Amino acid sequence: MKKKLKQLILSAVADDLEQIEIALNHNLNPYLELVQQIAGHILFSGGKRLRPLLMILCARMCGYKGEKLIHFSTMFEYLHVATLLHDDVIDQADMRRGKKAAHHVFGAAETVLTGDYLLAKSLAIASETQKIAIIQLAAKITEEMAQGELLQMMNQRNPELTEQDYLSIVQSKTAVLMQASCESGAILADVSPNVLNSVSNFGKNIGIAFQMADDVLDYTAETKILGKQIGADLREGKLTLPIIYTLNKANSTERAFIEKVIQDEHFSHTDFEKLIDIMTTYNSISFCMAHAESFIDKARKALKAIPETPEHQILYHIADFVVARDY
Amino acid sequence: MKKKLKQLILSAVADDLEQIEIALNHNLNPYLELVQQIAGHILFSGGKRLRPLLMILCARMCGYKGEKLIHFSTMFEYLHVATLLHDDVIDQADMRRGKKAAHHVFGAAETVLTGDYLLAKSLAIASETQKIAIIQLAAKITEEMAQGELLQMMNQRNPELTEQDYLSIVQSKTAVLMQASCESGAILADVSPNVLNSVSNFGKNIGIAFQMADDVLDYTAETKILGKQIGADLREGKLTLPIIYTLNKANSTERAFIEKVIQDEHFSHTDFEKLIDIMTTYNSISFCMAHAESFIDKARKALKAIPETPEHQILYHIADFVVARDY
Repeated sequence: MKKKLKQLILSAVADDLEQIEIALNHNLNPYLELVQQIAGHILFSGGKRLRPLLMILCARMCGYKGEKLIHFSTMFEYLHVATLLHDDVIDQADMRRGKKAAHHVFGAAETVLTGDYLLAKSLAIASETQKIAIIQLAAKITEEMAQGELLQMMNQRNPELTEQDYLSIVQSKTAVLMQASCESGAILADVSPNVLNSVSNFGKNIGIAFQMADDVLDYTAETKILGKQIGADLREGKLTLPIIYTLNKANSTERAFIEKVIQDEHFSHTDFEKLIDIMTTYNSISFCMAHAESFIDKARKALKAIPETPEHQILYHIADFVVARDY
Repeated sequence: MKKKLKQLILSAVADDLEQIEIALNHNLNPYLELVQQIAGHILFSGGKRLRPLLMILCARMCGYKGEKLIHFSTMFEYLHVATLLHDDVIDQADMRRGKKAAHHVFGAAETVLTGDYLLAKSLAIASETQKIAIIQLAAKITEEMAQGELLQMMNQRNPELTEQDYLSIVQSKTAVLMQASCESGAILADVSPNVLNSVSNFGKNIGIAFQMADDVLDYTAETKILGKQIGADLREGKLTLPIIYTLNKANSTERAFIEKVIQDEHFSHTDFEKLIDIMTTYNSISFCMAHAESFIDKARKALKAIPETPEHQILYHIADFVVARDY
């Protein structure tokens, strides 16, 4: 099922993906070779290009026919990668996409500056669209993502974090970027406020579902496929829905144990397995996936409000993939 | 002379400065109190507001009469402060404007993210001008400043750094921001390409002179007035014109000594005094100031090419102040 879904999507967007790669390469033209290396380290290491694809597909769905669409769409991959570079420095992450995180290879200072470069590059491309609304959106979500990451930091290892807090973080850290990718496509096509609203809701809801699925994968995926060790979030003190839900369900002994693990960045493999056992008791993973799927339902509904086009089917597939993926 | 110059400028722009402070306060509206604190720590600690002033004065000189000028001008102060926050983390600076650097008070990660927030804020305000050229300029110089800072890092403690290399760094790290502040004022006023070019040259040249004077102050200023210890650049391994010029003039014994000091981030007070003595022998400081003044001459010439307005006199004073200041 997962495999079939992936193939369906890939065959529909193969040409676009190829053009995105070319554009990402072409637009990345720093005068410093080092920036090229650091940006390239993460940019060309197997990203799914989900954000550019969302912009492209939403633009076409809304009737946009401009020739520079692929070029414009790279702005969201650059912005995404800029935040990944900064976040990995901030979280002191070890791995990203199966490779050593950039700051371990090139240094933290160099990585922060390359992030700044990519952030600026993203806004430079936004300005090429000549659409002030797109530029404003890009600037606004950059403000929001920085604050989302800060909010997450401020709640590191905080066992009192609620589902509501978690949702706020997910929304400002992750969902706004997918939402903006979709919205920007619609803005290019000069859609009505109603359509823009539907496209925006589609993007926001798959964004939330995407992050929820991501947070589940941190407890369930195989290291080789995930490209980093499972349990990495917990080790960094990031409390996500699987833990929050389990804490709410756990009895006092279990809760005390989980709180101990949360505070211990060097928790043992045995402790992690015991934690997974408690999660299993309460069906935490199923709950989280069902929760993620409820957002996919909302995304589908939002899409249904827009007159049917050939892009709809691919976007439905992408929505399904977001929660079905194993990486 | 310095004092009189400062008073002349201050009396001419007192109202603007007051309005800039209000706008900086008003526009800084993060939803996280922490961002307010970190940004406020540096934003309201005695900055000269030179970049907003340059934008405002150049806009008026070019005939711009829009009501949101002061508001727009804050974009360059936010951008400036964003780079200061990132640079201080990167250089591991101790002090800034007489206070502990933000990252020592609030943490490096928090400071990087607040820098991101301010960078985005700056571009959000740029987009409010509705002038694509201003947005493009802001994005382009952000790319360039990140690379300028990287170039400087890559040449840390490198005694082979040439005057030409130094000028490249100064241009991309500092001058582009003043240049863009001036240019943006002119763009608001829809000037001809010729006038834009003159305004741009004015900004670039005072930007270069400003940084040269700054680099001299690091060897000559009083700590109390400078707001950080003298010799801080050298301690961080930043080689600036006074050192580069002295290295070129020095005999082999002196050169060996200077190279030793360059490599030693914990050089003694005695070593630093000996270095100053060698600089005095070769009149290095006078050379650097004369060099800075030659850029001020270019700036003045650029301004003369624009039909005389009341703003000209203040801009001439600012140009003089840039090399005459003691902080």
